[in-house]
Amino acid sequence: MKLEEFECLNDEEKHLLLSMLRAIQLKKEGKQKTYIHSLLGLHEAEEDGEMVIKMPITPLLDNSLQIVHGGMTATLLDSTMGKLVFKTLLPHQLAVTQEMKINYTAPAVGQELICKAAILHKGTKTILVEGKVYRDDDVLVAHSTATFFILEQNKIQNA
Amino acid sequence: MKLEEFECLNDEEKHLLLSMLRAIQLKKEGKQKTYIHSLLGLHEAEEDGEMVIKMPITPLLDNSLQIVHGGMTATLLDSTMGKLVFKTLLPHQLAVTQEMKINYTAPAVGQELICKAAILHKGTKTILVEGKVYRDDDVLVAHSTATFFILEQNKIQNA
Amino acid sequence: MKLEEFECLNDEEKHLLLSMLRAIQLKKEGKQKTYIHSLLGLHEAEEDGEMVIKMPITPLLDNSLQIVHGGMTATLLDSTMGKLVFKTLLPHQLAVTQEMKINYTAPAVGQELICKAAILHKGTKTILVEGKVYRDDDVLVAHSTATFFILEQNKIQNA
Amino acid sequence: MKLEEFECLNDEEKHLLLSMLRAIQLKKEGKQKTYIHSLLGLHEAEEDGEMVIKMPITPLLDNSLQIVHGGMTATLLDSTMGKLVFKTLLPHQLAVTQEMKINYTAPAVGQELICKAAILHKGTKTILVEGKVYRDDDVLVAHSTATFFILEQNKIQNA
Repeated sequence: MKLEEFECLNDEEKHLLLSMLRAIQLKKEGKQKTYIHSLLGLHEAEEDGEMVIKMPITPLLDNSLQIVHGGMTATLLDSTMGKLVFKTLLPHQLAVTQEMKINYTAPAVGQELICKAAILHKGTKTILVEGKVYRDDDVLVAHSTATFFILEQNKIQNA
Repeated sequence: MKLEEFECLNDEEKHLLLSMLRAIQLKKEGKQKTYIHSLLGLHEAEEDGEMVIKMPITPLLDNSLQIVHGGMTATLLDSTMGKLVFKTLLPHQLAVTQEMKINYTAPAVGQELICKAAILHKGTKTILVEGKVYRDDDVLVAHSTATFFILEQNKIQNA
Repeated sequence: MKLEEFECLNDEEKHLLLSMLRAIQLKKEGKQKTYIHSLLGLHEAEEDGEMVIKMPITPLLDNSLQIVHGGMTATLLDSTMGKLVFKTLLPHQLAVTQEMKINYTAPAVGQELICKAAILHKGTKTILVEGKVYRDDDVLVAHSTATFFILEQNKIQNA
Repeated sequence: MKLEEFECLNDEEKHLLLSMLRAIQLKKEGKQKTYIHSLLGLHEAEEDGEMVIKMPITPLLDNSLQIVHGGMTATLLDSTMGKLVFKTLLPHQLAVTQEMKINYTAPAVGQELICKAAILHKGTKTILVEGKVYRDDDVLVAHSTATFFILEQNKIQNA
């Protein structure tokens, strides 16, 4: 890639390219375990002990109707609920998403999406979690319940 | 960005950056309506009249356990089912995902994920769709049912 | 049926037969709109303005493993959520269950099941509701979210 | 109960009372493991090796809108999918419904409901099943996916 090419990009495009560069950097430096979380701008915002993760709304999230792709909201939900689940696990346990249902209740518009997760039931094999996604004007955008399956094995070293 | 910086990236990182550049280019040229579809490498592969969309498995899709993020599989499912739904709509109709349930049945590993969608029920207001995601060794990775809500309005110009 | 036959029934069986007779009577007298609600012993117990319906656990509810049938818990959930939805409708509106997901979290044992429902989102066409079923020792037995579809038509006379 | 009282019942009411008496008898004689299956008239109809269970539509199934109660359709689905699951288990295994999602696609009218179940995925701990309910005019009334959790223990003696 040449410097001149970068100069041809408009602001939105520059922002997208730089967000990918940043995701690469953070992953390389071990500050983030995944590319996708940095790329989507997911950032934790602990609020009163509740698990809260925020995601800025950018053109990267758009579906073909120019509204936030349902899969991007699903990614935010799965990440937030999963992070909450991991906090409750023992050192030798892992958990994977077994099933997730999402109800989409309003268009995701505004500056950012705020996702809050709460445990509904913790069993010995599975954990049932609830996730809610709000807009910055407090309107509920999506509601989800998901089951995480607990795996009894040594945690992957760098997980 | 300077050329030297790009040279410091390893192959995986170069690939990621170039995939973003390509997504930007395709969107600019009007060949793709969204960034996310290009970035994830979604490509349609009509098979016997069935709606089939494939997604290559790359490190971009990884969650913190280094397996494909449930949200990425959800994105593939929502896109494939949504695309099938759009094919059945009248010119003045739109459809949005109302609810989606996903059951994850096996780890998503291999070269690519193959998603197939089929209509279960077409009503006047809603359409119920089934989506299945397979690995390249034909193992079922995820199963989904989703409801799309039909909106009676003029389609967005460039949608 | 002869009186002698009734005498041959044990207490459990007598109770079942009498509960059916009672359901028939209440329906005939117009005190109940359905047989099934009386038969299952569903009774409303408004608590702090919340919609609460209770169901006694009897052998009638058993599945082949001698625990409460998942379909009976589903019936309690659908009835409670539906009743809450009807309270929010306008006089000319009806609502039908469009979809319902239930997560079963613990065996339903004890004297009775207590179901509580709450509105998650009220749209113009659909209403998203949450239902929770508890045992009498406060353990969560089942969690549900359901979408009700609003029909704009004259309510059936005696509905 | 006196014979005279029975004579006062109309045909629908007599039918209901007799269906309860029959359920009691079949359970007593060990021909049915549950009251609810007999009462609802569930009967297996193996078709080409597929699991098929039928349920006659009677006033007992009505909800307050005089259409089949969503919980009754749920009961038919849970029973049919559960029965199919049990056929695949080893002698020392049991299975319980972990989660079930139902999409209701058309009003359940006509003479009877026909439910067909198929395995979507069989894991070592869980089994994912699909259930479809049809009317006698072949219209799809409800679609369901459900997860059954396998319990490794001795089967209850008379289960």
